[in-house]
Amino acid sequence: MGPQLHTAVLGATGYSGYELARLLLRHPRVETPVLLSRSAEKDSRPDLAHLYPALSGNGGYPMEPFSWDLLQQRGVELLFLATPHETSRALAPEALARGLRVIDLSGAWRLKEEQNRAVYKFEDKDAATAAELTEKAIYGLPELHADRIFGAPLVANPGCYATSVILALAPLVKAGVIDREKGIISDSKSGVSGAGKEPTAKTHFVSVADNLSAYGVFGHRHLGEILEQLTLHTAEFIFTPHLLPIPRGILSTIYVHLNRTMQSHEVEGYFREFYAGKRWVRVFPTPQLPQIQYSLYSNYCDIGFHLAQDGRRLVLVSCLDNLLKGAAGQAVQNMNLMYGWKEDEGLQ
Amino acid sequence: MGPQLHTAVLGATGYSGYELARLLLRHPRVETPVLLSRSAEKDSRPDLAHLYPALSGNGGYPMEPFSWDLLQQRGVELLFLATPHETSRALAPEALARGLRVIDLSGAWRLKEEQNRAVYKFEDKDAATAAELTEKAIYGLPELHADRIFGAPLVANPGCYATSVILALAPLVKAGVIDREKGIISDSKSGVSGAGKEPTAKTHFVSVADNLSAYGVFGHRHLGEILEQLTLHTAEFIFTPHLLPIPRGILSTIYVHLNRTMQSHEVEGYFREFYAGKRWVRVFPTPQLPQIQYSLYSNYCDIGFHLAQDGRRLVLVSCLDNLLKGAAGQAVQNMNLMYGWKEDEGLQ
Amino acid sequence: MGPQLHTAVLGATGYSGYELARLLLRHPRVETPVLLSRSAEKDSRPDLAHLYPALSGNGGYPMEPFSWDLLQQRGVELLFLATPHETSRALAPEALARGLRVIDLSGAWRLKEEQNRAVYKFEDKDAATAAELTEKAIYGLPELHADRIFGAPLVANPGCYATSVILALAPLVKAGVIDREKGIISDSKSGVSGAGKEPTAKTHFVSVADNLSAYGVFGHRHLGEILEQLTLHTAEFIFTPHLLPIPRGILSTIYVHLNRTMQSHEVEGYFREFYAGKRWVRVFPTPQLPQIQYSLYSNYCDIGFHLAQDGRRLVLVSCLDNLLKGAAGQAVQNMNLMYGWKEDEGLQ
Amino acid sequence: MGPQLHTAVLGATGYSGYELARLLLRHPRVETPVLLSRSAEKDSRPDLAHLYPALSGNGGYPMEPFSWDLLQQRGVELLFLATPHETSRALAPEALARGLRVIDLSGAWRLKEEQNRAVYKFEDKDAATAAELTEKAIYGLPELHADRIFGAPLVANPGCYATSVILALAPLVKAGVIDREKGIISDSKSGVSGAGKEPTAKTHFVSVADNLSAYGVFGHRHLGEILEQLTLHTAEFIFTPHLLPIPRGILSTIYVHLNRTMQSHEVEGYFREFYAGKRWVRVFPTPQLPQIQYSLYSNYCDIGFHLAQDGRRLVLVSCLDNLLKGAAGQAVQNMNLMYGWKEDEGLQ
Repeated sequence: MGPQLHTAVLGATGYSGYELARLLLRHPRVETPVLLSRSAEKDSRPDLAHLYPALSGNGGYPMEPFSWDLLQQRGVELLFLATPHETSRALAPEALARGLRVIDLSGAWRLKEEQNRAVYKFEDKDAATAAELTEKAIYGLPELHADRIFGAPLVANPGCYATSVILALAPLVKAGVIDREKGIISDSKSGVSGAGKEPTAKTHFVSVADNLSAYGVFGHRHLGEILEQLTLHTAEFIFTPHLLPIPRGILSTIYVHLNRTMQSHEVEGYFREFYAGKRWVRVFPTPQLPQIQYSLYSNYCDIGFHLAQDGRRLVLVSCLDNLLKGAAGQAVQNMNLMYGWKEDEGLQ
Repeated sequence: MGPQLHTAVLGATGYSGYELARLLLRHPRVETPVLLSRSAEKDSRPDLAHLYPALSGNGGYPMEPFSWDLLQQRGVELLFLATPHETSRALAPEALARGLRVIDLSGAWRLKEEQNRAVYKFEDKDAATAAELTEKAIYGLPELHADRIFGAPLVANPGCYATSVILALAPLVKAGVIDREKGIISDSKSGVSGAGKEPTAKTHFVSVADNLSAYGVFGHRHLGEILEQLTLHTAEFIFTPHLLPIPRGILSTIYVHLNRTMQSHEVEGYFREFYAGKRWVRVFPTPQLPQIQYSLYSNYCDIGFHLAQDGRRLVLVSCLDNLLKGAAGQAVQNMNLMYGWKEDEGLQ
Repeated sequence: MGPQLHTAVLGATGYSGYELARLLLRHPRVETPVLLSRSAEKDSRPDLAHLYPALSGNGGYPMEPFSWDLLQQRGVELLFLATPHETSRALAPEALARGLRVIDLSGAWRLKEEQNRAVYKFEDKDAATAAELTEKAIYGLPELHADRIFGAPLVANPGCYATSVILALAPLVKAGVIDREKGIISDSKSGVSGAGKEPTAKTHFVSVADNLSAYGVFGHRHLGEILEQLTLHTAEFIFTPHLLPIPRGILSTIYVHLNRTMQSHEVEGYFREFYAGKRWVRVFPTPQLPQIQYSLYSNYCDIGFHLAQDGRRLVLVSCLDNLLKGAAGQAVQNMNLMYGWKEDEGLQ
Repeated sequence: MGPQLHTAVLGATGYSGYELARLLLRHPRVETPVLLSRSAEKDSRPDLAHLYPALSGNGGYPMEPFSWDLLQQRGVELLFLATPHETSRALAPEALARGLRVIDLSGAWRLKEEQNRAVYKFEDKDAATAAELTEKAIYGLPELHADRIFGAPLVANPGCYATSVILALAPLVKAGVIDREKGIISDSKSGVSGAGKEPTAKTHFVSVADNLSAYGVFGHRHLGEILEQLTLHTAEFIFTPHLLPIPRGILSTIYVHLNRTMQSHEVEGYFREFYAGKRWVRVFPTPQLPQIQYSLYSNYCDIGFHLAQDGRRLVLVSCLDNLLKGAAGQAVQNMNLMYGWKEDEGLQ
């Protein structure tokens, strides 16, 4: 094994950033990551284990105030941005200019098409550089873009919902068997960690427990990613997220009409072929369906389906852990690919 | 106020039966109901408050062994069957023959069409009487059939899922504005009490908590009711139930394509018109959507919607408490209508 | 029935205030309450049903900006304060001076002893009046002080934890059978609504779900009430609250050594005697123990116990709904007593 | 590293057995374990991943029908019994006679004292051998008995509750600073997996959710272990378990009177000294207290405390994951010690 990679995580106090720190701390090919906080005072070095006591007991994990000098001092080669999209949009260009590679967990660099990017309302200081980077950034869904992730300077880690939807649909889109005229629907449900760590009326325990609610109907930010990656038109796809009374996990129930009559084994065949050799997607043999519990605390995306007796209508179910395959685990998978390592290093 | 009605509940130990007992115990127009159990020993009279201590503190609620003689002795006029469908199928004919009226909470009498009834595999001893009763039975969805419920001898109380779906779609079906070719989808989610009180691997706390799962895809028993009541063909409708980690409540997210371009206020208009004067349906002003919490412990069915910008695609959300508007509350509402009382007597 | 009472609720947007509003809205002896908010703009009248959609469907419930003039205009006789204790401390004196009666749900007026009051750090403008009122205020635990609540101008509604502990211990303290030297312990567990509606890191769903935590050990505000009402010394009592992953409900497990050997029926006898005729306490026959579910959505406090084989050590379990018997329900019970009505009016 | 150990797990379908299988499957010093089921048909080899789909995706995990011949064929040296105590009581003697070493996760071999063992009602065929083995079995709490676990032929893995209580009290018992006259109390709360995988009325989701209940007061099976290991008399200790609405995790709140006035740092000192070098106990710096979330999915037992201002009364809080440090993780820790490996092999 060669020398270890030097990495840094900016935003390790959020749910995804914390999971990422945990994964990197035990990854066999990376040094102890530099944990960065933009809010840390210059002379204080608050410990991540203080915020997340689950981490304690094995020495300290001091958070350090972010600066480019510090990154250089520590020889950081790969910077993970677990930051709000505005911050990622501002920092990534300079990181690349300084020769760092970047995996960004926000929505800052996921979208090519302007009308999709519009929902983020980016205010780029240097619009030309931003536009250039937008082109250069690779959408970090390893099952679709592994080749381009290897060697990429900037990887845009996909959204959690988007991962669950795109992976369930990609084999059928590629096979060209979907009747797009009739519309594709993803009814998706997520645990509360997907809403972030900020305490709000919406994330209060009493608001979420014993409840279920739909939100962001026709207007969720992950919609654009899904459309772009699957080359769908707005009118061909409906995405409805719901807030589940569980801490983590996503289940998407996806409805598709086929453009020709099929049998279950054919459908399963498309999935098995598409995901042959893909370490982190499990195709369930019909009629077994994935459940959220099965993929929790793992980097798997699980996919199953039922075909109607008419052979035309398909219900797909896709599950993953929003903090792992939906965020930090996928970021590590992307790192593995960027550096030519095995896809499951540090993720088993 | 006239004399009080004499009622009996068979199956008061199940979740729906218990809720029904509670409602009848405080209903201003009915006598203390006779609580019946088929498993009660002849000389024991187990107390319902022993099984449900929440009920204790106000005297006893003895369960009595079921017999036709007992019903006669007590002057029972209306019999509620909160029993498995086979039992309801066997008992209802005799009850009617003895001059009782019946509200049945099972699936025994909900369906007219044979292919739909097939899923229940009824084995009627007296097929002719059963067929006759099947014709006579009224589907007890008050917002659709109030006129026919008044005076009906046998009311088939709808399924919980079916209530949430039919009420959300009926105004649009009646208005003829749905593009049925593109298919209607109901992605429905229910709390665990909907799966009944029997302990199974599926209802074990550890199986349900921190989880979500789809089940009964393309094959749930409530499908037939929905098709019949909305006069839909099998190929026009997909229904996918899911098991939520909450004790009670249903949310259905329903996807519809319209056959002409509409504006939100038009859609809302159809609902407001259809439900004008209906005490137990709340139409939410768009863009507000119902959540499960809002209707828990009430007899309301709440309905809201979002219309896509293209004015063609509609996402409906419908919520109710599966034990009340989805079972016991609706049964009481049906009783109120059968006897010509106000629809909300005993339900406020 | 005589004329209806005119009431007002200040602070109806909090969890307890909302429950109180709901109870008053259906109370047979009170007019529709005036709902007051200190934050409401003068010309806006935000609707309580907008904040709590469960309330919608029966007309509006406008919140009005608080002013003494408004109370006078509306002929309000009884003011409920569901406000922070500083606010209650400031407003109650003026309310009484203006001839209103007050039921205060905060900790402002519960304590006589200065060292107990010290934890609240009251800063009274008019210390003399405050001291006088402190003497005059009645601790509104109806099972202990019904006589004094009748006619009282100012009733201090007890804390939720305190209610569960005091009711479990009062019969034994009165009987003088506790070995206080060995210490009394209450290990209490509460649902999250007890922590209030403010979103904080502590009430975030992800912090609470799949978790249990102790807090406020040796330092919880309700400690003083318990000591005073049971005439215990600090060294005789330990109180440890815990945050449960449920929305509402309290269970206190209480440990007592007896100063003489007893049998279960004797212990039960003390409870049955003490609570004879008390509408809202249910004494469970040993060995049955209450559970949180049994008293949810009711005004009951449930009490049960196990006696060790040695006849000396007693484990008591006490349950209630923190928003009802622990707050709003008890406030209504106090109102009923203040006006000489039946104790369960509007609470059944 | 030497040759790999050959192990087998009988009872891998239960919650603890499954966790154990998972740990052994990734343990660097053991071969793929033989997974045994007593109910597996001779010619069927049901797959564990079918029962626990979370395990799928990496090849199969066939369960094989238990027989002594099979164990011999496979060269099994260490047998884990994740079986009911009657089964463990019957099988362990023969296993030892055949030269196997045994780690038993049941209560079959934990107790020396007859009055404690009485609660299990063992019916030993060969009483003499059973008595002999009872003497020879080592109570597998590594933090107390590491020396004797090394080389032991039969290790009795402690109960989950017992682990949380004994580890919290052992340092103080050893230091002789507890005032036993005043009684020690452990108010313990456990997630539902502690109640086993069998579906019962008690483990039904609807019975557990939104609830808390005490059970087994003065009569829980783990009581005997705690008394023996801490050399306490029955009258000196009360243990009250409660069922929490969470899938896994235990929190014990423990109340102790000290026999002399102490300061916090002294108390903490006793813990730090006792657990110096112990890999799987984390002592929290006062006033920080452990919460259930912190130790979930780890093999840690976390301990913290608050000392009253009088320096005499102590509240201890102890947390662990009942399926790991409370069962399977501790079993692996015991295996590591039995074979002289590092205590955290396969557990990090």
